[in-house]
Amino acid sequence: MYTLAECQSIINQKLKDFEWVGFPINLYDPMRYMLALEGKRIRPALVLMGCNLFTDDISEAFFPALAIEAFHNFTLMHDDIMDKSTIRRGLPTVHAKWNTNIALLAGDAMLIKAYEFLLKTPADFLGSILPVFNQTALKVCEGQQLDMDYEEASDVTIQNYLTMIENKTALLIATSLKMGALIGRASDQDADLLFEFGRNLGLAFQLQDDWLDAFADPKVFGKAIGNDIITNKKTVLLVEALQKADALTRKKLQYWMARTDSPRNEKIEAILEIYKELKLEDLVRMKILNYHAKATECLGNVSTHKERKSEMLAFADFLMNRNK
Amino acid sequence: MYTLAECQSIINQKLKDFEWVGFPINLYDPMRYMLALEGKRIRPALVLMGCNLFTDDISEAFFPALAIEAFHNFTLMHDDIMDKSTIRRGLPTVHAKWNTNIALLAGDAMLIKAYEFLLKTPADFLGSILPVFNQTALKVCEGQQLDMDYEEASDVTIQNYLTMIENKTALLIATSLKMGALIGRASDQDADLLFEFGRNLGLAFQLQDDWLDAFADPKVFGKAIGNDIITNKKTVLLVEALQKADALTRKKLQYWMARTDSPRNEKIEAILEIYKELKLEDLVRMKILNYHAKATECLGNVSTHKERKSEMLAFADFLMNRNK
Repeated sequence: MYTLAECQSIINQKLKDFEWVGFPINLYDPMRYMLALEGKRIRPALVLMGCNLFTDDISEAFFPALAIEAFHNFTLMHDDIMDKSTIRRGLPTVHAKWNTNIALLAGDAMLIKAYEFLLKTPADFLGSILPVFNQTALKVCEGQQLDMDYEEASDVTIQNYLTMIENKTALLIATSLKMGALIGRASDQDADLLFEFGRNLGLAFQLQDDWLDAFADPKVFGKAIGNDIITNKKTVLLVEALQKADALTRKKLQYWMARTDSPRNEKIEAILEIYKELKLEDLVRMKILNYHAKATECLGNVSTHKERKSEMLAFADFLMNRNK
Repeated sequence: MYTLAECQSIINQKLKDFEWVGFPINLYDPMRYMLALEGKRIRPALVLMGCNLFTDDISEAFFPALAIEAFHNFTLMHDDIMDKSTIRRGLPTVHAKWNTNIALLAGDAMLIKAYEFLLKTPADFLGSILPVFNQTALKVCEGQQLDMDYEEASDVTIQNYLTMIENKTALLIATSLKMGALIGRASDQDADLLFEFGRNLGLAFQLQDDWLDAFADPKVFGKAIGNDIITNKKTVLLVEALQKADALTRKKLQYWMARTDSPRNEKIEAILEIYKELKLEDLVRMKILNYHAKATECLGNVSTHKERKSEMLAFADFLMNRNK
């Protein structure tokens, strides 16, 4: 069985095998630059691990895995433009290093590259994996648009929020696993169970991300907490707080959200205080454990040998126990 | 045999059959709006006509045709952002009506929709048409990047220019025809001949576009001539002029290109004068006729009944004789 680390290193090697060199250089250099930023390669690694649940030879899953990574990088390039983010993994984003037009077009080309990788998958799989990939690709766009819509909205419900993160984050993780399973010749039922495993794990992962920004131990977290609080990002915590607060607390919350001039720590502490009053630390922790439990249950029902599931279970536990 | 007009009307009907309605509305409304601008539907009509060269039943070509139209509209949405164009077909462009982020994401979703349409094509065609489509999709991005690169460049050769318009314009026309042919169960040889027909016709079409902006009869043209001259657009005429001019004439040309403050007509007349001195009207006309002749020759070699080719020949002649 391949470990997560082994899968990640296979992906990095395969990405390097590809010459991301081409003409015009203003199209291909940004793509190569983006991929060289070396993300964690979680999603493509999950394609390989999903396949490895059912078969020892995971080589047929290489191209679908690269397709998922190219797709993910397409979304990052365009999201960085939309969010006006200038730094990614400590280096300038593509639109900051070149310009917006170049980042837009390189993102387009990266999406087309994702399909190019898919088309290199053995032909008998195309009929099953292409529609799964395509449906999720559209959902990811829907999720990003919801994210932008909700930035402005004052009445986002927890259900709205969950739909948004499901589309924007969880479905691509689910799809990575399902594609891997299909290539491992899993039954449709097992492939769907892995999809559900990934969807629940993805939801838990995103909620955990929100939770850590507020409640992580700063000594372990590795970066300052409270960035989401400063930017009024619609996290599960802020959405829950706005829904659960009584009139007075909501006023306090809105007061602090409107304060963009106060010292950073003052705003963070004030809003954290409200989150604590509303007992959100435990409430969200429970939601995370709940999604994690659902994920584990789905994985438990996958009909492959128990030993084959150990790496996947370890990965799910690792995600749950991360503190940074 | 279906005429061009019949094919265009089929496409418009099929596009309407699709509910371009979805949630979130800020993702789907811009897509519906863009398609409702009712372009000429030339490219999808060519998919149907390419198919119709080999078979009477063109229904299997409907989805690939819609895919080509969705792809074309994706490029328009993103090109409009890059070119900062605010008007298309007399109405606000998507980014002007909504905003840049929405246009960017709706363009992404439109590209994914193109693949969705392709995936609805009968499965036995996917292996042949998907790679053709995908390769051209990447080439179109390369062409757009070259176009942006050449805006700034002072040493664009005619060969650079031709590569740019081939990628940006001609290959999608060629691919539309080839996909139609493949769906009509043409031989690979005939499909490739149609591709070459389309590539040459596309080059002629783009050169004609450049030519008309300078030399069209304003009474027939329907809009002001000289728009490319005012914006210093790197047309075949400007590229040829910069290459062919002697030192003095090049200086004159550069003087007028640098003038952004002079009355519109003064600049247009001065540069047209240079084009005439260099005999570019006839030179470019010859190039157009040359590509048209090559196109016609390719079509002549396609092994289908002569009568079946009459609509396609009429279309090629119509493109050549257009004066607006």
